[in-house]
Amino acid sequence: MPEVLAFATDDASCQFHRTTITRREPGPTEVFFEVAYAGICHSDIHTAKGEWGPTTYPLVPGHELAGIVTEVGSAVNKVQIGDRVGVGCFVDSCRACENCRAGQEQFCTGPGRTIWTYGARGRDGLPTAGGYSQGITVEQDYLIRLPDAIPFEAVAPLLCAGITLYSPLKRWGVGPGTKVAIVGMGGLGHVGVQIAAKLGAEVTVISQSLAKEADGLRFGATHYYAMSDPATRKALRSSFDLMISTVAADSNLDDLLGMLRVGGALVDVGLPEAPSTLRLGSLIGGNRVLAGSQIGGIAETQEMINFCAEHGVVPQVEIISGDEITGAYDKVINSQVRYRYVIDTSTF
Amino acid sequence: MPEVLAFATDDASCQFHRTTITRREPGPTEVFFEVAYAGICHSDIHTAKGEWGPTTYPLVPGHELAGIVTEVGSAVNKVQIGDRVGVGCFVDSCRACENCRAGQEQFCTGPGRTIWTYGARGRDGLPTAGGYSQGITVEQDYLIRLPDAIPFEAVAPLLCAGITLYSPLKRWGVGPGTKVAIVGMGGLGHVGVQIAAKLGAEVTVISQSLAKEADGLRFGATHYYAMSDPATRKALRSSFDLMISTVAADSNLDDLLGMLRVGGALVDVGLPEAPSTLRLGSLIGGNRVLAGSQIGGIAETQEMINFCAEHGVVPQVEIISGDEITGAYDKVINSQVRYRYVIDTSTF
Repeated sequence: MPEVLAFATDDASCQFHRTTITRREPGPTEVFFEVAYAGICHSDIHTAKGEWGPTTYPLVPGHELAGIVTEVGSAVNKVQIGDRVGVGCFVDSCRACENCRAGQEQFCTGPGRTIWTYGARGRDGLPTAGGYSQGITVEQDYLIRLPDAIPFEAVAPLLCAGITLYSPLKRWGVGPGTKVAIVGMGGLGHVGVQIAAKLGAEVTVISQSLAKEADGLRFGATHYYAMSDPATRKALRSSFDLMISTVAADSNLDDLLGMLRVGGALVDVGLPEAPSTLRLGSLIGGNRVLAGSQIGGIAETQEMINFCAEHGVVPQVEIISGDEITGAYDKVINSQVRYRYVIDTSTF
Repeated sequence: MPEVLAFATDDASCQFHRTTITRREPGPTEVFFEVAYAGICHSDIHTAKGEWGPTTYPLVPGHELAGIVTEVGSAVNKVQIGDRVGVGCFVDSCRACENCRAGQEQFCTGPGRTIWTYGARGRDGLPTAGGYSQGITVEQDYLIRLPDAIPFEAVAPLLCAGITLYSPLKRWGVGPGTKVAIVGMGGLGHVGVQIAAKLGAEVTVISQSLAKEADGLRFGATHYYAMSDPATRKALRSSFDLMISTVAADSNLDDLLGMLRVGGALVDVGLPEAPSTLRLGSLIGGNRVLAGSQIGGIAETQEMINFCAEHGVVPQVEIISGDEITGAYDKVINSQVRYRYVIDTSTF
């Protein structure tokens, strides 16, 4: 049984410390890969703090993993030793239910449901542990192949942030001629701006302030507005085919919906904790859509990674050591990260 | 200038009385038609009571008009004297804006916006007056041709209720293999059940109680549930591709959204007065959609009428006289109508 170094928190205080965890020997269709880099997603923080329901401690978070295969089971045919691979938010599912068969494994309804990369219970009955570790054993079907064209230290965030934005951009048919707004310019938003621009859309960023405007334009936006400016709501009235809100804070949905053209869609991926309020008239008075989107399935995640490699979509990251995780959580909460922390696991 | 008998209310008390109103002489592209039947829509009541904003009195409501052409302008080529025609919720728009050009005249953004059939201001500068009258002058482009296959006394409600349900059923691609729920079995819902069934969908009605179950099955539903039964929410979990809520009362959106399959849509056409509350997680945790829909454009309304004629979709109506309008309003509010009142204007 491989033992690997990891960083864990023992409670909601999120004081991370070095520890050792045991991974299972790869079965016939499983792969062990050495995690090189792991992104810190805001949802790691929500989970580690117990804000999304009860959390089992000690917890090793991390659902944006990039690494190199070092061991393969006897029946593995998807990857070889030495390949660059990644894992996103889940590591297994039933493969048989309606949603799995449709390539939407993140909504598995089979026995055991979707097995999340950490904080869940794996098929071996043990708690799953995520990417803040030096290695992991995963079923080959839940691996993503990582093209060399994306810098290895920057690719990890695509496995959650990237697919979270790519999936709704594709679902709503974004391409040349489409007017897209990305609401929020953080870890999710800064990838969304790049993908939408590379898909050919005219991209507007709506951020809390203009502080990150230069970055937004560099990522491919052509317009940048501050939500805090009272003129923004009026200036952007009936403007967009698609808006994607990456903001977890409570937003004024009616204001955002008013910025959509007839038939346009506002997709929320930010998941505010509290219930939201809106006037259904904001939807009816323009055949508008409010939708949610949760990551994407394995096939679509691979498609996204290939797209990003081909079009030069690269998350802007700050590389940190294991000892810096605890401090990084506070900086993510305070929006001080530009734009995603990635843990270098060689520092463990 | 043609003078016609009409029924009007002078204030929010909705005490309707006989009166005479003046219509303009048809211009070159206009038609005068004698209104034979006019439906009573719940939105007539909201408007007449001033519940949707300030109302100008005296008010002659009615936006479901069926009649016979008796006079045509010199350039009219769409209809002839003697033709059966109808008018729905609007009688004019700019024809030049993006939405008009896209066949969405109900969302006209041009000068004067969409000119609603009553309670608005027409191009002649006078208040528009609706279908509770014996005749109306209308631009030919805003007329719907009424096929003989639908009983004349029952066709009027399709011009609002019919298109309100048809448009979202078409937008979401309803057909054989689609599971559709119609929430609410009133004037809108009972037409929606018929259209969805004729499109080939498997139709479920979710009504407040089981009181109208036999009717629902006769209209084409195969399942009928009472929302008041606590077991309904669980029984219908993750069941539907599309749900259309026709209920104006405040609904538990999270409960309804939980009945959608992954990627499914809940379309609201009921327009509650108060703001609504939902958890965005109800959308995110299934890539679900909450949408609004407001009637349809002229071309789609004509398509709907032709579909209903071809497939035998007929509103179930109760014919009333002008003197019965006042009492009918209370019965609509109390859900006592089966399923739409239609005013016979020969009784004026």
